[in-house]
Amino acid sequence: MTARATIQPVIMSGGSGTRLWPMSRTARPKQFLKLLRDRSLFQETVLRLAPGDDIDFLPPLIIAGAAHATLIAAQLAEIGVAPAAIVIEPMARNTAAVAAVAGAWTAGRRPGALTLLAPADHLITNAAAFRAHVANAAAAASKGAIVTFGVRPSEAHTGYGYIEAGAPVIAGVAEVAAFREKPDRQTAEHYVKGGRHFWNAGIFLFSPEAMAGELEAFAPAIAREAAAALDESTTDGAVCRLDPARFAACPADSIDYAVMEKTARAAVAGPVDAGWSDIGAWTALADSEANDKADPRVVALDCDGVLIRTDGPFVGAIGVSDLIIVATGDAVLVAPKSRAQDVKKIVDELKARGRGELL
Amino acid sequence: MTARATIQPVIMSGGSGTRLWPMSRTARPKQFLKLLRDRSLFQETVLRLAPGDDIDFLPPLIIAGAAHATLIAAQLAEIGVAPAAIVIEPMARNTAAVAAVAGAWTAGRRPGALTLLAPADHLITNAAAFRAHVANAAAAASKGAIVTFGVRPSEAHTGYGYIEAGAPVIAGVAEVAAFREKPDRQTAEHYVKGGRHFWNAGIFLFSPEAMAGELEAFAPAIAREAAAALDESTTDGAVCRLDPARFAACPADSIDYAVMEKTARAAVAGPVDAGWSDIGAWTALADSEANDKADPRVVALDCDGVLIRTDGPFVGAIGVSDLIIVATGDAVLVAPKSRAQDVKKIVDELKARGRGELL
Repeated sequence: MTARATIQPVIMSGGSGTRLWPMSRTARPKQFLKLLRDRSLFQETVLRLAPGDDIDFLPPLIIAGAAHATLIAAQLAEIGVAPAAIVIEPMARNTAAVAAVAGAWTAGRRPGALTLLAPADHLITNAAAFRAHVANAAAAASKGAIVTFGVRPSEAHTGYGYIEAGAPVIAGVAEVAAFREKPDRQTAEHYVKGGRHFWNAGIFLFSPEAMAGELEAFAPAIAREAAAALDESTTDGAVCRLDPARFAACPADSIDYAVMEKTARAAVAGPVDAGWSDIGAWTALADSEANDKADPRVVALDCDGVLIRTDGPFVGAIGVSDLIIVATGDAVLVAPKSRAQDVKKIVDELKARGRGELL
Repeated sequence: MTARATIQPVIMSGGSGTRLWPMSRTARPKQFLKLLRDRSLFQETVLRLAPGDDIDFLPPLIIAGAAHATLIAAQLAEIGVAPAAIVIEPMARNTAAVAAVAGAWTAGRRPGALTLLAPADHLITNAAAFRAHVANAAAAASKGAIVTFGVRPSEAHTGYGYIEAGAPVIAGVAEVAAFREKPDRQTAEHYVKGGRHFWNAGIFLFSPEAMAGELEAFAPAIAREAAAALDESTTDGAVCRLDPARFAACPADSIDYAVMEKTARAAVAGPVDAGWSDIGAWTALADSEANDKADPRVVALDCDGVLIRTDGPFVGAIGVSDLIIVATGDAVLVAPKSRAQDVKKIVDELKARGRGELL
């Protein structure tokens, strides 16, 4: 039996969440909103990766844009968590660069630890179930696997990437037979029935050495510039600013394209049944069980299947069905649930009109 | 040929306009909102009754609640109109009391003038056409008729009272054969086809003596207490406050029930084709031609037949049809056009919840 692994959680907080407009804004994207509970998705993510009897999680590393550093510090303080550091990306460079920084940071400052790279804006209602998969997958990651987490599909979703599981590595972890990009409806239905295709949750567990090796092999410029950006970073208290020139030189690519689809080390843990959702659109909140408490700021008469959210204004609705109605102090959204994915078109239109104050 | 009549316009500004919530509020009901144009319905009404080559209108008398005196003075100043007075009702006592005060005020202060009693919250797009009816009907009113104005129905509306025209009095003015309360759909369709039934616009032209006589005959308590409330009123600049105890003693009844349905003097001018609407619900604005200018605070993508109004917040809508969406800084309304009349149910619910700040 191997020694229990120590794991460095690295929380990627760079998402913009435009499909949750008008609540999700550039200055306060969805991961920082208290959409479902008293805590934000970011706070829930941090707490989900706290040390416990089951896993030796180290204090979390947060990777985010400069605009959110203060908000992150405040939200961490609110839940009483001191981070290992808040690493500031001078500009967005997609997830491969983040994985490179995360691995390099862990290797340099927490030698021997594995890295768990997780988005800040996902919901996982059953943290214990998820942690059990992480604890189990650590054995595979310790042996050099780059482990993704595969969520058991609850529907034939065409907006997600799917992972096809291959031969078992250990119990609960399989080789990746293939990554399948967003499928058409028929293919997605086939996947769901077959039982070997899982949603790609965008969460990764790996040893820094394995990740560094694969990045060097498949994306050497990313490996080099990301490591240099960290080496030449400046630190002020808990905040670590990556070197802007170096990070700017880092090609922008996703970890899936840059590494996962090329490496022989790819593995998938799961299927995970832990109430996962990327809260990719307002309808994800309508589906959540956490959405059933009455809001005194809402009157809905003769309404059916209507999701009404407000962060201030009163909302009165009468005689409407299957709508999303979201109100903030300066903007209101009305759309049918079937158009939830298209909310970003309104954001695009606002951008085109130069209405930055509403983004 | 009789001498041209002098007419005292009396503008009733006591309406609450709850079906235009959330823009129409207790403190600023619909007649004071600039819903369609640069001027409010109140201002448009005042200007519609200004003196001209066609009619000797006297400066207007405004009758309103105390809460609106300042707003009225400001809106009059904005259009450069000095009123004869702003008469404050200490409490609402319906239109019969207002007619009694209007007649008594005219008789006492503008002897020889007729009284034109008009609601402040109606839209009449063709003021000239309306004024021609008033000028014509003055001859009948001078001879003792209490003239209502009958609007030619443009649809089988079931929310209005109808006036059935009888024998001609003069050209353009007929006796009232009957008042018909809100009819069912079939009856309303019959009315529209027949051509002898007109919408009751709630506008009245009469000599103060004729009105006083009929009130004394059919509603003596109203005649007595309203006259006393005016006799015992206090005046402060342009503001005349009716005596609260006397006005409180005045029975609350509509001029239609108290007088018009009983008097032999009832006459109807019309049919009036002057673009009349009582703007009774949001759908009335959707129907108006004045509603077609683009609002930079609105983005509507793939929307059809949607009325969007905002007095501040940005509104983004996508993929919805036949909805009313109204946004103010503190409240939002969403309803299908077919439920426009039911907006007041939301207001009722807010009252029941004690949310006075939203009323």
